[in-house]
Amino acid sequence: MKKKKLISEIGEFKLIEKIKKQIADFYKVKFPSSSIVVGIGDDAAAVRNEPGKLLVATTDMLVEGVHFKLNTTTPYNIGWKAMAVNLSDIAAMGAFPMYVLVTLGLPVNTSIESVNNLVQGALDLANRFKVFLIGGDIVRSPKALVVNMTLWGAVAKKQILKRSGAKVGDKIMVTGTLGDSAAGLKILQSKKKIKNTLWAKNLINQHLKPYPRIKEARLLASKELAHSMIDCSDGAALSIKFICQASKVGANIWLDKIPASLSLQQFSLVSDYVASSLGLYGGEDYELVFTVPSSKEAKVIKIISEELGTKVTTIGEIVSSKNGIGLFDKQRKINNLVLKGYEHFKH
Amino acid sequence: MKKKKLISEIGEFKLIEKIKKQIADFYKVKFPSSSIVVGIGDDAAAVRNEPGKLLVATTDMLVEGVHFKLNTTTPYNIGWKAMAVNLSDIAAMGAFPMYVLVTLGLPVNTSIESVNNLVQGALDLANRFKVFLIGGDIVRSPKALVVNMTLWGAVAKKQILKRSGAKVGDKIMVTGTLGDSAAGLKILQSKKKIKNTLWAKNLINQHLKPYPRIKEARLLASKELAHSMIDCSDGAALSIKFICQASKVGANIWLDKIPASLSLQQFSLVSDYVASSLGLYGGEDYELVFTVPSSKEAKVIKIISEELGTKVTTIGEIVSSKNGIGLFDKQRKINNLVLKGYEHFKH
Repeated sequence: MKKKKLISEIGEFKLIEKIKKQIADFYKVKFPSSSIVVGIGDDAAAVRNEPGKLLVATTDMLVEGVHFKLNTTTPYNIGWKAMAVNLSDIAAMGAFPMYVLVTLGLPVNTSIESVNNLVQGALDLANRFKVFLIGGDIVRSPKALVVNMTLWGAVAKKQILKRSGAKVGDKIMVTGTLGDSAAGLKILQSKKKIKNTLWAKNLINQHLKPYPRIKEARLLASKELAHSMIDCSDGAALSIKFICQASKVGANIWLDKIPASLSLQQFSLVSDYVASSLGLYGGEDYELVFTVPSSKEAKVIKIISEELGTKVTTIGEIVSSKNGIGLFDKQRKINNLVLKGYEHFKH
Repeated sequence: MKKKKLISEIGEFKLIEKIKKQIADFYKVKFPSSSIVVGIGDDAAAVRNEPGKLLVATTDMLVEGVHFKLNTTTPYNIGWKAMAVNLSDIAAMGAFPMYVLVTLGLPVNTSIESVNNLVQGALDLANRFKVFLIGGDIVRSPKALVVNMTLWGAVAKKQILKRSGAKVGDKIMVTGTLGDSAAGLKILQSKKKIKNTLWAKNLINQHLKPYPRIKEARLLASKELAHSMIDCSDGAALSIKFICQASKVGANIWLDKIPASLSLQQFSLVSDYVASSLGLYGGEDYELVFTVPSSKEAKVIKIISEELGTKVTTIGEIVSSKNGIGLFDKQRKINNLVLKGYEHFKH
């Protein structure tokens, strides 16, 4: 008997491509629907609702042993982070979040206090954005703690920001700084005694308790400043690759412009890690990566800084798809982008 | 140090009560919202959407080793059943389902074919009701296969059917027959060689591949025939208990009226199981339990039979809450209802 091919042989992204194709083929045969504006393959799905308005929905699962370990985080932070990950996907569409459903898979030896704390972490972050927890499900899980959230929100049809839409000449911009979360994870996994420094605590906190960029996304969407947007969950390099694929364009990325926090600069001084590499390939920063026409670059930087106090940095520009995705250091091309990022299943 | 109380000490329903209270307390302090029509504690949540219309959403998780075992079912049936369970919750509100998001937690040694088959099972059932799979997430799970689905749909505000709403004098009715799924599970778990009989196959099929009562529910809702409704996921006894609690009423249940399929009658002949007990306490039938004013009882039976070919049976009546929930056999009260049903965490 022929051995069946395992998902570990193809990895997460090829598997998702396969499933996407399976579903697209199925619906092509059965019935196409004009109500679906964004289907599988963006940060969230979008369907028509009231005239001119879209419903936007996303779902994400965190699994103990894969996405977190109970000895390096707390139930409160797990609830917070699961909410943050989903909020970030809604933000990436330019939408505002409204309602969330939570499913918990719990081992029988879980304490009630842990469950309360996990729910509280989710509630506290949701409440910052007036998102309501309106339902869910609690089931038994044999071993691993599993948290699944499904979040939905709304956006005016003309405001929605997709991965597609980037135009040649657009500037590629990013909110905040990149690489903190990856550095925080490295510190949690290391045995070195640096965990108690202030900068290490900052980095760990960025990993365990990310803050989604809902307000920045809404500002960009409501003022129609951006052409395309994605969040930075698998690293900025992959985010830019996804924008290029969906928009059928290329990109020049400026390595020396990747914004690094002071804490990350400290970490790179005492470790072998290069801040800009963590920024490009690290993942789990939940910052926004977006493209804007160059005529609006200055306005975007000003308005997001003035209204929200958030730094925005230009880290590259959109070029023709012929050029591919190039990585530049101080205006000198160093190579074509190595398209790596965090990927499930492959090790 | 005081030992922390575990969820296994209080069981699923008390845990859900605790979390419900935590969330209610949180929102009471923070901000009440008039947009939420049905919050935590019904089969699905409902929020205001366009004028007069509600969005209804539900989420459910199936976990390998808890809800299914890979040696007694197939990936196709797992996808089908996960979809059925969620569809049944939307049906129980009288709503029509529209969109679904699917999250898969997959062990690395899962075959691609298994994932394709699981997705196909979900697509095939969803397609029967024109429900679109519009997005999801695929993550690694260390050991157990986990399937989470979130389904949403819509219903006119005046048509929504909740657990509350049952009135004294209402008849308690149920679609189809009860107990098949529980019997199917017993057969799968037993070592006896009865699996290959036709009736055993029927029962196993009801357990592995339930069919949700969307059409029956929509008929009841659109013609405004019922006062309250719930699905039968944890057994009819618990379903009736939940209706009584939410509606602040009591119930008389007629044991000799619990509808049993011919296959279940066969099974009870060759086993120690009593058909009506499996029907009342078995769970996972995904039939609808609903209450209707007695003036409409005949009409409901006629219309559902004529338009859909589905049998509907009256299995009791709503009485004052003073009477509690009583179990009657051939009009003789035998006891107060033993309020058992399937419950997670407690063994």
